[in-house]
Amino acid sequence: MQIYKAPLNEMRFVLEAMGYDEVQKLEGYEDFDMDVAMSILEEQGKFCANEMLPLNQTGDQEGIHYDPQEQTITMPKGFIELYNKYKEAGISGLVHPPQYGGSGAPSMLGVMVAEMPTATNKSFSMCPGLTNGLIDAMLHHANDELKDAYLPKLVSGEWAGTMCLTEPHCGTDLGLLKTKAEPQDDHYLITGTKIWITFGEHDLTDNIIHLVLARLPDAPEGIKGISLFLVPKVTLDGERNPIYCGGVEHKMGIHASPTCVMNLENAKGWLVGEPHKGMRAMFVMMNHARLNVGIEGISLAEISYQTAVQFAKDRRQSRSLDPEKRDPNAPADTILVHPDVRRMLLNARAGVEGMRALASYVGKHLDISKKSTDEEARAYSSDIVALLTPIIKSFFTEKGCRYIDDAMQSLGGSGYTTDWCIEQYYRDARIAMIYEGTNHIQALDLVGRKLTIENGRLFRRFNEEITTLIKESKEDERMAEFINPLKKASKALAEVTMGLAMKGMQDPEEIGAVASAYLNLFGFTALAFIYCKKAQYALKKDDAHSKTKLKTARFYMNNMLPEIYGLIPQIEAGKASMMDFDMDEF
Amino acid sequence: MQIYKAPLNEMRFVLEAMGYDEVQKLEGYEDFDMDVAMSILEEQGKFCANEMLPLNQTGDQEGIHYDPQEQTITMPKGFIELYNKYKEAGISGLVHPPQYGGSGAPSMLGVMVAEMPTATNKSFSMCPGLTNGLIDAMLHHANDELKDAYLPKLVSGEWAGTMCLTEPHCGTDLGLLKTKAEPQDDHYLITGTKIWITFGEHDLTDNIIHLVLARLPDAPEGIKGISLFLVPKVTLDGERNPIYCGGVEHKMGIHASPTCVMNLENAKGWLVGEPHKGMRAMFVMMNHARLNVGIEGISLAEISYQTAVQFAKDRRQSRSLDPEKRDPNAPADTILVHPDVRRMLLNARAGVEGMRALASYVGKHLDISKKSTDEEARAYSSDIVALLTPIIKSFFTEKGCRYIDDAMQSLGGSGYTTDWCIEQYYRDARIAMIYEGTNHIQALDLVGRKLTIENGRLFRRFNEEITTLIKESKEDERMAEFINPLKKASKALAEVTMGLAMKGMQDPEEIGAVASAYLNLFGFTALAFIYCKKAQYALKKDDAHSKTKLKTARFYMNNMLPEIYGLIPQIEAGKASMMDFDMDEF
Repeated sequence: MQIYKAPLNEMRFVLEAMGYDEVQKLEGYEDFDMDVAMSILEEQGKFCANEMLPLNQTGDQEGIHYDPQEQTITMPKGFIELYNKYKEAGISGLVHPPQYGGSGAPSMLGVMVAEMPTATNKSFSMCPGLTNGLIDAMLHHANDELKDAYLPKLVSGEWAGTMCLTEPHCGTDLGLLKTKAEPQDDHYLITGTKIWITFGEHDLTDNIIHLVLARLPDAPEGIKGISLFLVPKVTLDGERNPIYCGGVEHKMGIHASPTCVMNLENAKGWLVGEPHKGMRAMFVMMNHARLNVGIEGISLAEISYQTAVQFAKDRRQSRSLDPEKRDPNAPADTILVHPDVRRMLLNARAGVEGMRALASYVGKHLDISKKSTDEEARAYSSDIVALLTPIIKSFFTEKGCRYIDDAMQSLGGSGYTTDWCIEQYYRDARIAMIYEGTNHIQALDLVGRKLTIENGRLFRRFNEEITTLIKESKEDERMAEFINPLKKASKALAEVTMGLAMKGMQDPEEIGAVASAYLNLFGFTALAFIYCKKAQYALKKDDAHSKTKLKTARFYMNNMLPEIYGLIPQIEAGKASMMDFDMDEF
Repeated sequence: MQIYKAPLNEMRFVLEAMGYDEVQKLEGYEDFDMDVAMSILEEQGKFCANEMLPLNQTGDQEGIHYDPQEQTITMPKGFIELYNKYKEAGISGLVHPPQYGGSGAPSMLGVMVAEMPTATNKSFSMCPGLTNGLIDAMLHHANDELKDAYLPKLVSGEWAGTMCLTEPHCGTDLGLLKTKAEPQDDHYLITGTKIWITFGEHDLTDNIIHLVLARLPDAPEGIKGISLFLVPKVTLDGERNPIYCGGVEHKMGIHASPTCVMNLENAKGWLVGEPHKGMRAMFVMMNHARLNVGIEGISLAEISYQTAVQFAKDRRQSRSLDPEKRDPNAPADTILVHPDVRRMLLNARAGVEGMRALASYVGKHLDISKKSTDEEARAYSSDIVALLTPIIKSFFTEKGCRYIDDAMQSLGGSGYTTDWCIEQYYRDARIAMIYEGTNHIQALDLVGRKLTIENGRLFRRFNEEITTLIKESKEDERMAEFINPLKKASKALAEVTMGLAMKGMQDPEEIGAVASAYLNLFGFTALAFIYCKKAQYALKKDDAHSKTKLKTARFYMNNMLPEIYGLIPQIEAGKASMMDFDMDEF
């Protein structure tokens, strides 16, 4: 049983509450008014539900087929046809510049559209997803010649893209990478082995464009000697470039997404950006990817929630604890009467809705950071995006898995079977805590990098957003039940942040020990801020949907946010108890 | 890469610290001194590592084969041979009475042996696991004729057993069950459909003995009209009884454990216990099963931890944050230097060791409750077992999955592949939160039943255990760092328990809303108690292993126990925010 319906009412509410009107005023976005935005969401939602979802479970069960002789990969049944329809549906080019064939839509809308393909067919969606990241990196760093030659076909989906970073001995630690690039004529010859390459090889497109990290002969050691190259499977001359898939991984999930070992032997590559500055260009791609990976946490929790609600409204088991809620015409009540079933479903729902709104809020700031005519506004929004990106990647994927798990649990034994598909959603979602930089790497990025910029400028700016909202809400006593928990949480967050900064200056291991818990504390507090913003708007709007939103905000504040009071003492405990163990005591 | 080694040193330490000497003094256990116990653990550990583990991943990948024509099931390759060796190894009969061919070992030892088969081949271990539950139920409720006819072959493993409770329309709510039993001569004819029947059909044994819940013609409605029947696949006359496997479930994990739909059409059955009192007998089997299911949480977290440690000691990535810990002879340090890797590994390790010790403590009380000559001691220990059984089932399985997840995460991308097998451990472990009564059903059993007996007699007795330990530790200031967090936690638990009792009397929905969080609060506090007991013994013993135990206790107290301060406000928040939603708001 696979069901999905894009939550359009909620999406509209979120866009409105998070300030889509500000985005619409930006240059270039005039055509994307709320009606246009909603019609795009509706259309893509239908496409995903009707075309993507039916191939989700079959893709998982069939998996990809790797031919070690030919070093080719055949995708599961129906995927090529689906890919052709997907190209036509125009999801891929949505946010890309019209100059290269894109629609030029705002990111605030883009992040909302992005959740749908992942919700309905995560394996499949990874192919266009990675292509989008590559397009972003090229837009920022490639020269015009490369852009003109490659971008139109990448934007249209005629060609697909990958990012080739990891090698067998280095994943997190890219400074160790060994792949070599030898200059030759106008290009380079690249030799090395890359692993974990998503859609490194497949039969959906005629050509695959790889972005590959490698070292030039004169490169300095470590992370500062890495350059970025564009390596097409087929060169513009029509020549098969020697970059081949030497094997595939066998994984817990995303069975229809090939994870490839890619061997390069003197493959022709073209430099993207400056020599030795490859990591900078790669970071553009990674930041894009990190936001999208965060959204995966929303996607699969959303479809799991929808599935669980369908089950809960149908399944009858035991009697309501409240005699008045018992159905006299049936031998048992629907399980939705049971408080614990509601607790699990509302965890998923309030989590998902909060995360979606936070993603949308970051999308707005991404748009402002790109398009505002006010330099200060661009810098301000850019800070908000930079600060919240690791939180979106890490908090969303961790909590997303937790919510899928809650949804699964609410089905009892059925949740464990393939019949309701939630077990697949869990398996498919689980990788998101690992790839694009493990969740802990995000936490180190947040605490070790983002917080330290100019003595906490980014943190101060986000805190300003919170204090502004608190001030705005002072007069409205209906806001108190939401604002008070936010006040308490943001005060605690500020104190912990200060304490951490002091400790970390003396001993970086203290940061490593608690960064993951700190990121979660931050994530919960950011969601509390978002829920206050949603409540503020709901009180203004005051229709039926808004009344439900107030209930959800209340559930978040009372039943979910308090988790931070278990995190704070863990952060305060610091590193001592874990660093005390000798190696051989493990 | 599948590795496992029974943690014998830790097991010995736990047996000593939790009071194995008390058990050894009980009548019938004289032969099981510490040396005998350790040699059994060593032998079974080797058997599991050498014989069970090699068929674990192959079993998962091959799965079972169901023939819909013949309604038979063929087990994966090698399972029949393994089963025959398993019978010979004598794990199954370990705790059963010598009268029926068992070894009559204490439960305190039995629960420790029980973790090994599950750790090394969970699917396989479920067959003897269920048989043990059936033996227990028969020992308590079957008449001598049935016992003499069936128990010897069940204890030896020549025959296997199942429990047939659930029907398509009723799982949690057994009062709805419809299977009928018509009296005929000395037996009954049973007709109905049962689902989720683990090892309902297979080719490991010549006969399978089912315990089936059904209704007699004159049965009252609901839960009070259910009787229990023994239904053999092949009767003692050698006749094939019409109980057939009509289908199997497709599941997230335990692929080598058949989950069957069983159709009974006038199958011959024999009454076990009194008419209409089937649930009482079934509860014996379920209580046994619930303890064992809890232990599954230990098992798969233990093997995941061992696997992750092996990986972490080998894998080099990035530099230690502390310059002094850097290995000058390698380009990167082993990931065990990174605080966050330690945090994840220690979560798993401290969780597992705490749970194992708590299971052992309950095993001791189980032995006392059965064998003590002092009636008061029997009653007291019986209360401890009854109180802690739902916590062991629910807390252990939930946290077990969390620890496996931590272990998986510490491997990065490798954790997501089948290469290191942790992804299978997760999939296999996940069902334990659902079967044998979902974790929330355990929480309702704890709060709604166990706490209410004689105004909290069970809780008072367990609390007495805690206060006794606190008093004993008063003089020893080395104990303060462990005792203080326990004091604080147990005080909070007592207060919350009181508050909950008051609220619950007025409104049972309040119980339903917070029972799951309450159970977790109880679980964490129980583990704090156990860690104090372990610390007390470690200080007395004062060898190398004991020093590590103190570190682990410290990690638990400082970095894990504080999670309760996130649970308490959730419990205080109560039902309001979740019951406020109308059905159509979901």
